[in-house]
Amino acid sequence: MTDIPPDRRPSHLDGSLVPGFTGSPLDRVDAWRQDPAAIMKALNDPRACLLRMEGLDPLLDADGALDWGHLAEAAWDAELALLGLIGGIPRFVALTPAVPHAARRSPALNGMLDYLEPAQAATYAAARSLIDWHARHRFCANCGTPTTLYRAGWGRRCPGCRAEHFPRTDPVVIMLAEHAGCVLVGRQRSWPTGRYSALAGFVEVGESIEEAVARELAEEAGVVATSVRYLVSQPWPFPSQLMVACIAPVADAALHLDQHELEDAFWATREDIRAALAAEPDARFIAPPPYAVAHTLFARWLAEQAD
Amino acid sequence: MTDIPPDRRPSHLDGSLVPGFTGSPLDRVDAWRQDPAAIMKALNDPRACLLRMEGLDPLLDADGALDWGHLAEAAWDAELALLGLIGGIPRFVALTPAVPHAARRSPALNGMLDYLEPAQAATYAAARSLIDWHARHRFCANCGTPTTLYRAGWGRRCPGCRAEHFPRTDPVVIMLAEHAGCVLVGRQRSWPTGRYSALAGFVEVGESIEEAVARELAEEAGVVATSVRYLVSQPWPFPSQLMVACIAPVADAALHLDQHELEDAFWATREDIRAALAAEPDARFIAPPPYAVAHTLFARWLAEQAD
Repeated sequence: MTDIPPDRRPSHLDGSLVPGFTGSPLDRVDAWRQDPAAIMKALNDPRACLLRMEGLDPLLDADGALDWGHLAEAAWDAELALLGLIGGIPRFVALTPAVPHAARRSPALNGMLDYLEPAQAATYAAARSLIDWHARHRFCANCGTPTTLYRAGWGRRCPGCRAEHFPRTDPVVIMLAEHAGCVLVGRQRSWPTGRYSALAGFVEVGESIEEAVARELAEEAGVVATSVRYLVSQPWPFPSQLMVACIAPVADAALHLDQHELEDAFWATREDIRAALAAEPDARFIAPPPYAVAHTLFARWLAEQAD
Repeated sequence: MTDIPPDRRPSHLDGSLVPGFTGSPLDRVDAWRQDPAAIMKALNDPRACLLRMEGLDPLLDADGALDWGHLAEAAWDAELALLGLIGGIPRFVALTPAVPHAARRSPALNGMLDYLEPAQAATYAAARSLIDWHARHRFCANCGTPTTLYRAGWGRRCPGCRAEHFPRTDPVVIMLAEHAGCVLVGRQRSWPTGRYSALAGFVEVGESIEEAVARELAEEAGVVATSVRYLVSQPWPFPSQLMVACIAPVADAALHLDQHELEDAFWATREDIRAALAAEPDARFIAPPPYAVAHTLFARWLAEQAD
């Protein structure tokens, strides 16, 4: 856990049941995207705002909220995407071709995410995923021709083969195997010292959420799920995953770890989870940050145990 | 409903709680995909099988199951993708550049899907989505260079910019708004006469499953979800969606339909749903086919009402 001054800790931190990156006040006005007149009206609205960013990081105002500027602040070579409306005011983001890969987070951003309210982070998530997708999808995957933006930034189309392309959202399952009142936590070699989390993996074509959960648990830890229960979801803008959090009871606690995926894993007790969420100095492991759905998953599982 | 001879109706039809396109016996052997020696061994296994297809449609054997042939049957210009193992035997599918768009289903396929067991359909779903993805993603979206297959067919990479690309799985929410013991069903203008289903839409970047459900219900029908409850999921290989089925109670039954999305919608009673699932001649509407998750969603909702 980072050391956030207690008076700056937003209410969502530490064991909240509300997932991070959710609750954006954005009205996405889908109908406007297909209406050139509505897009022009939004662009010419004198109140229209641009999300202030530095590369892929948001700029925050004095209150620690997202900062909004005037559309004229956009770089001359940037295209604009209409995120939607907040408070009836059109909100845009500038799409720039040269941005770092959105799968990587800057240290500055990690610090900001500890403070940012989930609803603010949610609006940022939509912007970041959109910027990244445009930056890395400027050519038609079907024929190689440079594509052009359309639908107010919610798609690109090919002038060559007429293929239409839409921003990707990759579903990922993240799950706690459960056995005898404990849940399975694991760590990857690349993670910060002491950090453990729920296991996770991409949902593949031709499988359900439930099947992906069972497959990942079998592949990574050698445990066999007897059932799968959905709990909660959140977007994860690094670059654009949809995290689907589940609980999966297993019949046998014996672990057979895939050493390529996991450096270590163990069965955590309720007390282990409670201490980790509270960031106690002698906790058995360091929990993922509150804005990660794994944190919410731990918190919800713990709350259920108390019921 | 199509008229399937009673003795040929698989057990999953009509009101089953098991979603279509699930239960594939495929072991996806993820570890093999990154191991060239394992891929070569699979390709040289004399028992290795090729899924027999005609374009995007499966060929079925005399028992109405997927038909498997020898690898040598693949067209000379086809690349092979390793679906995984069934019964310990490597199973491949041939990737051909010229296939029809997988979003469209042939009439022959629609007929087959009424017969095919969900587990068989699930293996086919993985193959179909994979074929379609490769056919429409032969160029690097980042730089326009032709890409090459890797990871045994579970990815493509760019020899120019080194970008890696993975098969898309697009999450879609499909939901029943619920009010006073009834659920909301709607129809699109393009659907067969009398067909109604649950409302649905793609999950966008920067939103959770729950938020996507609420947004789609508001956009399409003008109803406000007070909560969202996950029920079940399934893959949908037309071309590669992950269908996430939910129930969402709403406080006010008044409808404001988006005429671009919906031609009509109404609140269906339990009896309406029961009669539609049973395909009764005087049912108020025609339900989606059993292999669609909307059918499962109706069936599960109805089963809950009886509890």
